[in-house]
Amino acid sequence: MEKITSRKNTYISHIRALAKDADYRYTSREFLCDGMKLLQEAVSFGAEITSVLWKDDPSDRFSFSDSVRQYFVPEELFSYASPMANSPGPVFTVRIPSAKSGRILRNALILENVQDPGNVGTVIRTANAFGMDAVILVGACADVYSPKTARSTMGAIFRQNILRTDLQGLTDILTKSALPLYGAVLSPRAVSILEKDISRSAVAVGSEGNGLSRELIELCDGEIIIPMEPDSESLNAAVAASVIMWEMRGR
Amino acid sequence: MEKITSRKNTYISHIRALAKDADYRYTSREFLCDGMKLLQEAVSFGAEITSVLWKDDPSDRFSFSDSVRQYFVPEELFSYASPMANSPGPVFTVRIPSAKSGRILRNALILENVQDPGNVGTVIRTANAFGMDAVILVGACADVYSPKTARSTMGAIFRQNILRTDLQGLTDILTKSALPLYGAVLSPRAVSILEKDISRSAVAVGSEGNGLSRELIELCDGEIIIPMEPDSESLNAAVAASVIMWEMRGR
Repeated sequence: MEKITSRKNTYISHIRALAKDADYRYTSREFLCDGMKLLQEAVSFGAEITSVLWKDDPSDRFSFSDSVRQYFVPEELFSYASPMANSPGPVFTVRIPSAKSGRILRNALILENVQDPGNVGTVIRTANAFGMDAVILVGACADVYSPKTARSTMGAIFRQNILRTDLQGLTDILTKSALPLYGAVLSPRAVSILEKDISRSAVAVGSEGNGLSRELIELCDGEIIIPMEPDSESLNAAVAASVIMWEMRGR
Repeated sequence: MEKITSRKNTYISHIRALAKDADYRYTSREFLCDGMKLLQEAVSFGAEITSVLWKDDPSDRFSFSDSVRQYFVPEELFSYASPMANSPGPVFTVRIPSAKSGRILRNALILENVQDPGNVGTVIRTANAFGMDAVILVGACADVYSPKTARSTMGAIFRQNILRTDLQGLTDILTKSALPLYGAVLSPRAVSILEKDISRSAVAVGSEGNGLSRELIELCDGEIIIPMEPDSESLNAAVAASVIMWEMRGR
């Protein structure tokens, strides 16, 4: 365990860049997580932890293999390095897993242009709880590997199969798995999810403000809707996706 | 329309206190909302708007009755008054409606100790979309009338019947409506919501960290669970409540 005392230390710079810069995350093939609970989840699921940064010299540290670099810093420097205010720590870095895009999928939940990291993380968490084969992100979604998204998955980020692709890649994945694609839209011609068997399918949910793109809707085999009360406009994107995934599980 | 130029203006102090202090909100019987979209919702649902604070002199202001006081302030003072960073404005105050606790309920969703305002707001939004007769908040939930909660309801705060009470009050409400009370718990003896008709009932959801209190569980007529994959611990509180409300609607 190495003590770091300078803000200019290259590891501190690495941590801060991982927190802020999605491109840097994918170049480094690492992402940053925060807190003891996520660390326990990462350990118990066998995620490839690459380093841990502790606040002060911890008494309750884990035993890791030698390949996990461990550091500790004074409180002030920890606050500087950590993306989360007033975090008790630690922060740690995890290898971004390789996408398992070759697998045949029985079902998938697709998010398009969902920009809120809490919503993206919550969808990943629900998908894992409901046994979805994949969450597929297309368009300008919040980055899966940002600290906020990772935190709101509550550990599901280490367990859930997550794919990131474009519309051509999406078509290829669904064709390979012979999955029909349904778009969740707020349209009177959409079929209620109570009247359509979506158990072996892929369903796409868009942003709350704009819904799905025209390009994605054109790829769809049908449009579905969660029936709502007449004076109600819409659901939170994570709630809509969760109700859909619940229905996809079947009875 | 009156122009305000001083931070010491009593209306500016009133706005800031409404943003920050739940006790002050209930004493004043007013709450603070932010943004044009919520203002449109408040107008279209006939909420009792008491005042509007515009950033600069607006060109697109609404016509209100004379009882709605209207003010405008320079940008710097707006930022000082508004609870939301970089808000385009306006902010406005709304009368807290009287609770309709005397009504007979066909169903209700109860939240206990759910402290995240986004979760409380999202549950109110979903409850409204799914036609719930009431959302009942007990224990130390995030305040319904905080700006963050109001914002995340996306206008449902003006339409949804919301009750705040303690466990004795909860018992009285459910007895009057002859509603059984089920607690959502992560327990092996809980019955799957797929195997229990919860369409005419009240279901309580607790905080993600601690679940329901022992006192509330003792009031319950039964315990229910949303079935999940074995390696999955829990759902986001708003997602769990939303799936339960979806099931309460029936098929």
